[in-house]
Amino acid sequence: MSENKIPYKIYLEENEIPKAWYNMRADMKNKPAPLLNPGTLEPMKAEELSGVFCEELVAQELDNDTAYFEIPKEIRDYYKMYRPSPLMRAYRLEEKLGTPAKIYYKFEGNNTSGSHKLNSAIAQAYYAKKQGLKGVTTETGAGQWGTALSMACAYFGLDCKVYMVKVSYEQKPFRREVMRTYGASVTPSPSMETAIGRKILEKHPGTTGSLGCAISEAVEVATTNEGYRYVLGSVLNQVLLHQSVIGLETKAALDKYGIKADMIIGCAGGGSNLGGLIAPFMGEKLRGEKDYRIIAVEPASCPSFTRGTFAYDFCDTGMVCPLAKMYTLGSDFIPAPNHAGGLRYHGMSSILSQLYADGYMEAVSVKQTDVFEAAEQFARTEGILPAPESSHAIKAAIDEALKCKETGEEKTIVFGLTGTGYFDMVAYEKFHEGEMSDYIPTDEEIAKNIANLPKVE
Amino acid sequence: MSENKIPYKIYLEENEIPKAWYNMRADMKNKPAPLLNPGTLEPMKAEELSGVFCEELVAQELDNDTAYFEIPKEIRDYYKMYRPSPLMRAYRLEEKLGTPAKIYYKFEGNNTSGSHKLNSAIAQAYYAKKQGLKGVTTETGAGQWGTALSMACAYFGLDCKVYMVKVSYEQKPFRREVMRTYGASVTPSPSMETAIGRKILEKHPGTTGSLGCAISEAVEVATTNEGYRYVLGSVLNQVLLHQSVIGLETKAALDKYGIKADMIIGCAGGGSNLGGLIAPFMGEKLRGEKDYRIIAVEPASCPSFTRGTFAYDFCDTGMVCPLAKMYTLGSDFIPAPNHAGGLRYHGMSSILSQLYADGYMEAVSVKQTDVFEAAEQFARTEGILPAPESSHAIKAAIDEALKCKETGEEKTIVFGLTGTGYFDMVAYEKFHEGEMSDYIPTDEEIAKNIANLPKVE
Repeated sequence: MSENKIPYKIYLEENEIPKAWYNMRADMKNKPAPLLNPGTLEPMKAEELSGVFCEELVAQELDNDTAYFEIPKEIRDYYKMYRPSPLMRAYRLEEKLGTPAKIYYKFEGNNTSGSHKLNSAIAQAYYAKKQGLKGVTTETGAGQWGTALSMACAYFGLDCKVYMVKVSYEQKPFRREVMRTYGASVTPSPSMETAIGRKILEKHPGTTGSLGCAISEAVEVATTNEGYRYVLGSVLNQVLLHQSVIGLETKAALDKYGIKADMIIGCAGGGSNLGGLIAPFMGEKLRGEKDYRIIAVEPASCPSFTRGTFAYDFCDTGMVCPLAKMYTLGSDFIPAPNHAGGLRYHGMSSILSQLYADGYMEAVSVKQTDVFEAAEQFARTEGILPAPESSHAIKAAIDEALKCKETGEEKTIVFGLTGTGYFDMVAYEKFHEGEMSDYIPTDEEIAKNIANLPKVE
Repeated sequence: MSENKIPYKIYLEENEIPKAWYNMRADMKNKPAPLLNPGTLEPMKAEELSGVFCEELVAQELDNDTAYFEIPKEIRDYYKMYRPSPLMRAYRLEEKLGTPAKIYYKFEGNNTSGSHKLNSAIAQAYYAKKQGLKGVTTETGAGQWGTALSMACAYFGLDCKVYMVKVSYEQKPFRREVMRTYGASVTPSPSMETAIGRKILEKHPGTTGSLGCAISEAVEVATTNEGYRYVLGSVLNQVLLHQSVIGLETKAALDKYGIKADMIIGCAGGGSNLGGLIAPFMGEKLRGEKDYRIIAVEPASCPSFTRGTFAYDFCDTGMVCPLAKMYTLGSDFIPAPNHAGGLRYHGMSSILSQLYADGYMEAVSVKQTDVFEAAEQFARTEGILPAPESSHAIKAAIDEALKCKETGEEKTIVFGLTGTGYFDMVAYEKFHEGEMSDYIPTDEEIAKNIANLPKVE
């Protein structure tokens, strides 16, 4: 098909939704390091993990060898409500930039959760239902993950208990209300409902909470209530597996039109979107079949890839979860209060960390005001209002397209547009009002946190 | 194609986006009554209207004979960013209801404006640009129309001045911020920027504004500034023309799969969505080719079709705009403060009013708490979080589907899902908290307003 026949939106057919998720680990020579028991520092066994997570998800978490996991029909049926998602050709942005580059973006925001998080939420809810559980617990910060999980639980008739960081609960009442519309109970964390919550409130009566504390409460409720398990929206191997549906569809759409990508760009917080988007491309690269530049984009204010250390660390600030080997800024690291652009996790998926350490990926960090400038330019040309997280990828894609303008190269850039910014207007407002700054942690601050990493040989 | 092959989402191809809008007036035996000059009570001439509206839009407004208007390439190119919109089969809702009815909905919320309003905004901005104007002015209440217009103006590089009802400006800062992201200037109305605004503020210093006042300010700015015109997002004939793209796509998708609709259901405020959705179906009905039940759904708290009068009335509370013959509750009518579900316009499109008067359409009114209950049921089964406006159509579609359950009839129901509810969470919160009531105006209240209608023979 000739180049000028490529539509603005490439939609696959319903029967082209992938039938299996792809597990990058199967093609990695150096497998990601195992999770460690925080008490014994021994690799976590399935039996230990299955008190916290659903059994089939534990199996997915630990499986470094199976390349493809069949997507159950029930999950594929749900996917049909919002998938395949469109691969968009950014004709207008290209024109605006005056670049010879060809820019594509995979848009995951066309569902009520507003992001790609639903791809894994529906899978995790399905396995919980299949195991006969009553419900699941989780934490949420900004609320994308909590919303996605609420939708998935409503669909399968599961109880959904969300612990929402108190400051977000109060500042983002609309997110909370969306979750309630889907029948979830949303509790501001720390709460008096859990032992850990009561302990924290006793010690810090006025605290507005943290993600680490919310995780601890959600895990406590899951492990002390019959018929409940805990679920998580990023970082884990199982989540990257589910999110591979993004990359598989992207590749199918490109292949359909005979398009070869030169580079794949995604934003990276815990790695769920990036790991999903790049999966099949990375697979080809790992198997030596094709080459691509694969670029992770992170905020300069929370630069785990570009300034962190590759080491074992706690996944949560409460230090109740297993240790993971990853690029980390230390589990005490918290981005500066002015940081409004999401992607604030201190660590990074173990899979992506290993791939980065082995030289299969690049990483760049971008400043927050540059990110919002790119977001606004994108909104005005392409119409879609992007989430701040997604806008990190937009910024990097624009930078690469402008390099092509200088060199005259007609490269094909594919980036992930993970979601929409409807619930992020407070951040946009700060940007419009000139109240947004670009605080970047000093070397001393980062070194101080990293000095506290747990000692694992 | 066999019934069980119908996908969850029917997407048309990009080259199946309609190439012309359809003008129902061409097939109406009784044409809608002309707009009248509020001073002379004579039909408005093109010359009079062109001081307020763009020339090509005036021509479209007054043309009762041309059946098809070619959609300019520039508008079709923009449509490609978010159109064709999907026609969804509500398999899950059908299953939940246990109905033999087949339910389809045309989903217009997959664009950043969150609603169908963009279909006309981009057309109106295009004609303004083509005429060489500097910019356009408008009013907005809840903000859907203002957002759509901001997006369209950003695309064509037009200045966009939005007068936003002050109470909405303060209560909906996120909507305001989206408009600013697209480069619009948003002014709370009444403002000190206009003569009418200053006059109103002098008389009522603490007023939180009204749509009528915002219209007056927007019209004043358009008519007193070189290179500006006023644009409006509903009610007008030109708007229904542009919105016919919804119905044309719906019909093309149904035809593609050999589906014959039995009834078409749409919510009705000013009539822009309903008039667009039903256009080609009504055309067939007017020409005697096919028959459909066509059902307008309005809030019981603002029942212009079901309890209003068919007469000439002012289109705005400020009485500066032309008079239109329509079903109206009187231009002073304001829904009860508790009304949270949109569709609060006192009148109705002249075209739809004439069709209703001539028996081509039915109308029902629904209570607000029933609407939100239907909205929540829809969200939990179909995933999409609907706008309150759209949820009126959902409620009526569910009612019809439940009737089919009783009678065992396998009717095919098509309704318009005009938009998403991301910016309406305050209303959902009221519903969740049990703070929502169902005030319905008394006969006396309606009679009092209607008694004040302007005297036109």
